[in-house]
Amino acid sequence: MNLRVGIIGATGYTGYELLRIIHRHPQAHVAWATSEKSAGQRLGDLYPSPDPTPLIRLADAPLHEADAVFLCLPHGASMEAVATLRAAGVRTIDLSADFRLPDPQLYQRWYGRPHTQPQLLATAVYGLCEVNRAAIRQAELIANPGCYPTSVNLGLWPLARAGVLGANVIIDAKSGVSGAGRKPRLSSLFVEANENLSPYSIGYAHRHISEMELILGAHVPQLEITFSPHLLPVNRGILSTMYIDIDPDLSAAQVRDIYQQQYASEAMIHLLPAGQVATLRHTVHSNRCAIGLTPLPYPGRWIVTASEDNLLKGASGQAVQNMNIMFGLPEASGLL
Amino acid sequence: MNLRVGIIGATGYTGYELLRIIHRHPQAHVAWATSEKSAGQRLGDLYPSPDPTPLIRLADAPLHEADAVFLCLPHGASMEAVATLRAAGVRTIDLSADFRLPDPQLYQRWYGRPHTQPQLLATAVYGLCEVNRAAIRQAELIANPGCYPTSVNLGLWPLARAGVLGANVIIDAKSGVSGAGRKPRLSSLFVEANENLSPYSIGYAHRHISEMELILGAHVPQLEITFSPHLLPVNRGILSTMYIDIDPDLSAAQVRDIYQQQYASEAMIHLLPAGQVATLRHTVHSNRCAIGLTPLPYPGRWIVTASEDNLLKGASGQAVQNMNIMFGLPEASGLL
Amino acid sequence: MNLRVGIIGATGYTGYELLRIIHRHPQAHVAWATSEKSAGQRLGDLYPSPDPTPLIRLADAPLHEADAVFLCLPHGASMEAVATLRAAGVRTIDLSADFRLPDPQLYQRWYGRPHTQPQLLATAVYGLCEVNRAAIRQAELIANPGCYPTSVNLGLWPLARAGVLGANVIIDAKSGVSGAGRKPRLSSLFVEANENLSPYSIGYAHRHISEMELILGAHVPQLEITFSPHLLPVNRGILSTMYIDIDPDLSAAQVRDIYQQQYASEAMIHLLPAGQVATLRHTVHSNRCAIGLTPLPYPGRWIVTASEDNLLKGASGQAVQNMNIMFGLPEASGLL
Amino acid sequence: MNLRVGIIGATGYTGYELLRIIHRHPQAHVAWATSEKSAGQRLGDLYPSPDPTPLIRLADAPLHEADAVFLCLPHGASMEAVATLRAAGVRTIDLSADFRLPDPQLYQRWYGRPHTQPQLLATAVYGLCEVNRAAIRQAELIANPGCYPTSVNLGLWPLARAGVLGANVIIDAKSGVSGAGRKPRLSSLFVEANENLSPYSIGYAHRHISEMELILGAHVPQLEITFSPHLLPVNRGILSTMYIDIDPDLSAAQVRDIYQQQYASEAMIHLLPAGQVATLRHTVHSNRCAIGLTPLPYPGRWIVTASEDNLLKGASGQAVQNMNIMFGLPEASGLL
Repeated sequence: MNLRVGIIGATGYTGYELLRIIHRHPQAHVAWATSEKSAGQRLGDLYPSPDPTPLIRLADAPLHEADAVFLCLPHGASMEAVATLRAAGVRTIDLSADFRLPDPQLYQRWYGRPHTQPQLLATAVYGLCEVNRAAIRQAELIANPGCYPTSVNLGLWPLARAGVLGANVIIDAKSGVSGAGRKPRLSSLFVEANENLSPYSIGYAHRHISEMELILGAHVPQLEITFSPHLLPVNRGILSTMYIDIDPDLSAAQVRDIYQQQYASEAMIHLLPAGQVATLRHTVHSNRCAIGLTPLPYPGRWIVTASEDNLLKGASGQAVQNMNIMFGLPEASGLL
Repeated sequence: MNLRVGIIGATGYTGYELLRIIHRHPQAHVAWATSEKSAGQRLGDLYPSPDPTPLIRLADAPLHEADAVFLCLPHGASMEAVATLRAAGVRTIDLSADFRLPDPQLYQRWYGRPHTQPQLLATAVYGLCEVNRAAIRQAELIANPGCYPTSVNLGLWPLARAGVLGANVIIDAKSGVSGAGRKPRLSSLFVEANENLSPYSIGYAHRHISEMELILGAHVPQLEITFSPHLLPVNRGILSTMYIDIDPDLSAAQVRDIYQQQYASEAMIHLLPAGQVATLRHTVHSNRCAIGLTPLPYPGRWIVTASEDNLLKGASGQAVQNMNIMFGLPEASGLL
Repeated sequence: MNLRVGIIGATGYTGYELLRIIHRHPQAHVAWATSEKSAGQRLGDLYPSPDPTPLIRLADAPLHEADAVFLCLPHGASMEAVATLRAAGVRTIDLSADFRLPDPQLYQRWYGRPHTQPQLLATAVYGLCEVNRAAIRQAELIANPGCYPTSVNLGLWPLARAGVLGANVIIDAKSGVSGAGRKPRLSSLFVEANENLSPYSIGYAHRHISEMELILGAHVPQLEITFSPHLLPVNRGILSTMYIDIDPDLSAAQVRDIYQQQYASEAMIHLLPAGQVATLRHTVHSNRCAIGLTPLPYPGRWIVTASEDNLLKGASGQAVQNMNIMFGLPEASGLL
Repeated sequence: MNLRVGIIGATGYTGYELLRIIHRHPQAHVAWATSEKSAGQRLGDLYPSPDPTPLIRLADAPLHEADAVFLCLPHGASMEAVATLRAAGVRTIDLSADFRLPDPQLYQRWYGRPHTQPQLLATAVYGLCEVNRAAIRQAELIANPGCYPTSVNLGLWPLARAGVLGANVIIDAKSGVSGAGRKPRLSSLFVEANENLSPYSIGYAHRHISEMELILGAHVPQLEITFSPHLLPVNRGILSTMYIDIDPDLSAAQVRDIYQQQYASEAMIHLLPAGQVATLRHTVHSNRCAIGLTPLPYPGRWIVTASEDNLLKGASGQAVQNMNIMFGLPEASGLL
């Protein structure tokens, strides 16, 4: 099998990363790639790369000549394009937030605009691979998870699913600057971010909270998320340091056992030995999520550290992992 | 007045920073500076600086020709030197941890060695300027606070003193690499720290917890500190993101009022307007501590962000502020 | 004396740096500061700083209530404002390139636009302090030198003036990102500049060559400059590594002697001992230029390394040094 | 074919990089890996990686169970180990400098110690793949080139070989800190290298000059190299900016043609279009060398920019490329 892949919005950081992955994927190749702004150029004209992939306008893209299409468009801009693709019967992986929340009211609340394709929401599968693999296999439309929620949900899902996670979850998260995209803005300037660390949208303000409530809230009643992202002077990587309460009757061995059972056969989860914590270096340039478990001396209280590469496991890598699952390919194909 | 200043251990990052401050201090000058390893050289031989200060051995230092002496020695090595200075009647500011904890048992517990000068502990004043100013004025021996505790204690002291701070205090702290000192070690290498973020000694393990318990615990019974330091790829700066519970009956305005009253006349505290958070950039290369107050949508829960320059307000700057207070100089002299 | 200082264009990196210097200057204070975009706000609203300086529109600035005015406007925008200030009789220091080149044809050639105030060019003094001090003392209008040329000209001026510098001068220069200003653009984004090094405008293309030809060319006939700037992933600092030919009959001691005589009493020049090279760290956050002299084993060939802080000695620091000279103040006032 | 690979000295940066490459190499696998200091541990104990490769002592390594062995030992320490491997008949790729110079006198001069295995020197092939491919195919012992010389030699080889390169070659090179290895030392500390740029061993002092003289000097009589390395605050990557004279009668098109003919079928050379310059970003995390050609307005003078990843094309990547050539594998296997 050699899948024909279309990439819509190929010139941002996630689109570029997708191109790199698909180029080295043994069972897939890039059929076409679009950019409204740079149509007519080649990717190597925009990036310091010899990549000769031509960029075309979306209107000129031969949708039917793709087995799978990835969308790397801004939130809001993706809805219409997904509807077109689905109408054409193309299997679609959307990296925007537009199909992550099943309830259009929720979308309106967090993203401040009405959802124009609510009829498609029920068909979308939230592509958190380790959690929703069975549904992903059957999916025609994948909503690829957000970067922060991937680290948080993978880090806490085993406890939530086991019914032992307490309602008060505090997440102190730190992300590299590529998470802000390739659009020039003051806060993304080198001089502003370098030698600095900036909390932003802390408390209960960041849109990604909705995805944590979606996944963890399914198992934790009255979940109360506190989420504090920080802009970190590195190119890539997310570290989430999470302060949680769990059932105080569980021993440390039992807690670890919950994770080991959940993730025993997961190639993309690096469960760290007792006494170790996740660092960015554990996962940058990989498609893995590293998870460390640290007990506190206070009964039932733990710190979970989880790291990932925000452009790989937190975006384009997980998107390809979803494609691999959808098409029955080895899950790690292209993601070594 | 022109104070004669001695600096013991002048070649580490805090010693070098002290030299730079004293050189530009209008009412003080460097009388002598010591280094056991580099005696016979000049400071400018060790740093890319034209600083011609000669380095001598401690044994050769004319203790009596100094009005104030700063010690920048490793924990444990400071005790004896302080005893010598105090026996000579010299006013002393110790940047090590050796005289920060009033109880020698506590010292033994956190630092893993017996205190050899317990008789001096009662004479030492914990030099957190904004909290202990009156005692500092009279002090002959100052224990200069640790870098992390300065940001934490200044950030939470108003609430603790007002009796409204809850027992469960979670501190997610991030520090630049200069906090690890100038000694070559693997984790301080550029390639190891750059493009990385590493939690270390998280939970209830770091020695600096003892200083938070000392200051905040005086007002908060049953205090339960959770403290997670992270090594950050910047040269200098500490940001502490603190998750706290307070009396839920307090309005946001009342909380802010508590800080404003406490810090109204403090030149070194930058209390940020509502809606703002502290970043490293607020305080790096200054002697200030910036404090931001962010309410959560959960009653009685807040996030306090506090930043400082770990080498200035978190070490050498605060040490000079202590000297200024001790000698009746303008508190900001040399610290502009 | 307490000079009243006006700053036009106070919100870019050089304007902000000027404000910081003037705030700590013992014989000057900020009378007013302008920003067309941010008028009505305070500086501390735009920078993570407690600086309360109000920003006004240039049209509202009381020009006569300033003894000295600094202009931090883009090239081209400065010409008219300077003319207005000079007509009002205010002593002016222009940080743009608009008055650096005495010949309007040269300005047209390098800056691609006609000079609209050619009559003022003859009155402008090129403010390279160590070279033009006598003229600066009398000046009413200073053209503050460019960042790159300051390091190059200070590094080679002694040899040029002594008549021993050969015509073929190769300069490999590296600058921190603040040199590109605070305007959002793709190449200044953190992710683009970090973990990267980019040559740009190399060979004979960069406008700053004109200032090197101005200063060095006055003494070196047929000067052939090759100038290769590189964008360096640091906030501030310039290092110029210069490959030159000089009179092969000069001994190493004679070469060094030429520098020592020229710079013997210069507080802002740090002439490094034989065997040392200039690094960024020698000068960042100072107003100095560090210069290292390295002989090659080929007769008459040398490498000169020169570093400076591009925002201080390369811009705002040198501008204040010029002000100090113009008004008879101690040359290092505010520049410690 | 599935080659059995042994790696001696697997825990430094180049050894770790080799392990990563061989793990993803489709026709090779790691048979054993050695570390004297960390024998008994697994690689994942030393790096933030799940790599389970066990580390053994060299004395315990089953030499005959490897088809190819890589040595990542310090200069000087490699000689004896290579002799043992060759005596055992194992094909060997040495990443140290010990077999790069054919003349033991030259080795003594540049490395300050006698060569203990001079009889092997004649059998060693200098593994600059694009230059020595035919010899590499037959080689039993490869001396893998140094990081700096790879960028310099690949950047200038076409001109040297064509007989048009002038004798005076000035190389201003900049390298990331991983080039200094993983051994803790002051100059490699984060705080020392970050926000800094340091020239070192400039002029005619760095050992790597010997490899430039070896390759370029074979075609350029009286070659006069000037070589100025700079320590750059990035993890990886080398950029060499080279100032050269060539035959002034050559047109720009002819110069470019020389490169195109030499490198037409080279997958690892990225010859940039006219008007472009090489940046680190062109090659970091790839096994390519990017080359840009910039004419100067002075007849016969050019700037050549060449970049590479110092750990890949400059070390471990090129080592695997050599292995691929030696064993008749696709040259890019494992190096995508």
